[in-house]
Amino acid sequence: MTETIRLSLEALREVVLISLRSKAVSEAHASAIADQIVAAERDGSESHGFFRLPGYLKSVISGKVDPQSVPEVREIAPSVLRVDLNNGFAPLGHVAVRERAIAIAKRQGIAAVAFVNSFHFSALWAELEPIAEQGIGGFAFRAGVSRVAPEGGVLPVFGTNPIGFAWPRHGRPPLVIDLATSAIARGEIQLRQRTGQEIPPGWAIDVDGNSTTDPARGLAGAQLTFGGYKGSALALMVELLAGPLIGDMLSFEALRADNGDGGPPRGGELLILFDPSRFVSEGSKDPTEHAERLFELLTQQPGVRLPSDRRYRARQHSKMNGVNVSRTLLQDVVSLSGEMAAGQISAFLGANESNHITGES
Amino acid sequence: MTETIRLSLEALREVVLISLRSKAVSEAHASAIADQIVAAERDGSESHGFFRLPGYLKSVISGKVDPQSVPEVREIAPSVLRVDLNNGFAPLGHVAVRERAIAIAKRQGIAAVAFVNSFHFSALWAELEPIAEQGIGGFAFRAGVSRVAPEGGVLPVFGTNPIGFAWPRHGRPPLVIDLATSAIARGEIQLRQRTGQEIPPGWAIDVDGNSTTDPARGLAGAQLTFGGYKGSALALMVELLAGPLIGDMLSFEALRADNGDGGPPRGGELLILFDPSRFVSEGSKDPTEHAERLFELLTQQPGVRLPSDRRYRARQHSKMNGVNVSRTLLQDVVSLSGEMAAGQISAFLGANESNHITGES
Repeated sequence: MTETIRLSLEALREVVLISLRSKAVSEAHASAIADQIVAAERDGSESHGFFRLPGYLKSVISGKVDPQSVPEVREIAPSVLRVDLNNGFAPLGHVAVRERAIAIAKRQGIAAVAFVNSFHFSALWAELEPIAEQGIGGFAFRAGVSRVAPEGGVLPVFGTNPIGFAWPRHGRPPLVIDLATSAIARGEIQLRQRTGQEIPPGWAIDVDGNSTTDPARGLAGAQLTFGGYKGSALALMVELLAGPLIGDMLSFEALRADNGDGGPPRGGELLILFDPSRFVSEGSKDPTEHAERLFELLTQQPGVRLPSDRRYRARQHSKMNGVNVSRTLLQDVVSLSGEMAAGQISAFLGANESNHITGES
Repeated sequence: MTETIRLSLEALREVVLISLRSKAVSEAHASAIADQIVAAERDGSESHGFFRLPGYLKSVISGKVDPQSVPEVREIAPSVLRVDLNNGFAPLGHVAVRERAIAIAKRQGIAAVAFVNSFHFSALWAELEPIAEQGIGGFAFRAGVSRVAPEGGVLPVFGTNPIGFAWPRHGRPPLVIDLATSAIARGEIQLRQRTGQEIPPGWAIDVDGNSTTDPARGLAGAQLTFGGYKGSALALMVELLAGPLIGDMLSFEALRADNGDGGPPRGGELLILFDPSRFVSEGSKDPTEHAERLFELLTQQPGVRLPSDRRYRARQHSKMNGVNVSRTLLQDVVSLSGEMAAGQISAFLGANESNHITGES
């Protein structure tokens, strides 16, 4: 038996839905989470994919997250929306506010959305892409739980604090940037620990603040930001935007508040949306046409890749061929989902043999 | 004779004004430029200080910049202002639009300002600080002229493309971040070339794309972004925001358009302003109070410094003691300013002996 099972994207989505329903997650939340997990697997971004489902389930089991919460959207200033997730999962907030936020960006030129009281495994690109597909550009900022030391410091203060940015393109998928301000994802250090490999200098420091290549010491100490003091300054910026500005927690407050259930941590998010057609005068160049000159200049250089290209290539492949899911992970999900859901998942996968797209994985 | 002359900030400002007037620069432009040059010298940011004055003068002499241009401010969307500098210097645009932009941010929650058709030596912190002093946070983005290669590439495409961010503090100077997305300022590489020193790997590549420690080869090739592909993605983001979005030039277009007079290059700027008091609901924590907890947590670590601290310390010192200006540079300015202005500067410095705060420098 192979270690993975190959599933079509539709089959993967159904497994996620059955599992979330087993924990009384509302259809609205389950659908939003399933979309995010499937999008991540589809794009080869496994760290935000099926791997996250056990965490979602555990956070309902532990009582940390309200699986039936209903997001409330309020216009708190002419160009600012506030989405209160009411202790619910984050993905539904984006679904709930997206059209209204786009309408405000079109009306005002620029708009902001503050997401509060939510629990998230952030995948900023998945939140920005549907906005940019409608011709709207945007930024996204999220804090996390304290894992990353500031430049020159020893104690972790920042989360991995990602920055997202999207730019719409005519007749092509948007350009979407999504980068953690930490040098590397925490999962990469954990992976090296499991496989007994060293980590490169620059990823982490030990508890005394010394550079370390030992993943265990790095995990016990603190991760580092990318790009030295510049990355550290950007991590600080994200912390301010996704915490105090919108009235949600700083990363160290989110770490203290967490119950350690392995589920998504609490944290806010700030989106900024802008409508390029409202930024230029009549007779000016079309912004998205003009930007194509830049993309040409970049991609005519053989070694240069636009930030979202790798995901789009993975997407083409997985839409045709499905995705490989670890059998161990699937078993974990089945166990967490309880007997009835386990039966449903088995029945579904059995009855839809074509869904696994048989063959080696 | 020492190589430098010590001047009070007031005396420095007067010298800059006399010099700019000699080239028929309008009082409004001269005052805005002088404020920026003095602020930079005051804060120890010499790369944006007096060193830039010859460039300003040369760009008027060459006819590239209109020294009498009048900025036009228009509201092109309810939350977007457009400032057309009409081929003038950039600093006056900020003076012209600041109060109106702040008022819109307060009314709408978030606002954007697009600066176009201007020539600049950017100092984003100097533009953001007066806004944050009024309780408003903000971002600033500027492109430049192509000097920096994208990650994986060989040809320079990006400018040094700085990102600025400001956060207001109660009863304290604001936190202001200002970072180039290039690994290092071009001037630092030029300095190493003059002094015959090597540059560290990571600053630049030669014309074939190989890493180089030879400053001359690096200057002939391309600078690199900070933080590898992440910094490169941010440089790309800045390029889109300060060029196509606002209908101004990309860095490669600005490089082609420049006449090589050594003056400021053409380039656009995007400001985004937000009013923290419009982002939180009633009963929520005050954003700026909340942020102080983060600053405490950071600064209680001995090796950690907030991004603007070094400038504020330099400022305290230079307000008391004045600043040191290179005599060679002063001579260049005097020569470029013509006989009448030269006489005025000599008379002014002679008549105001106390202005140079005599003594070793």
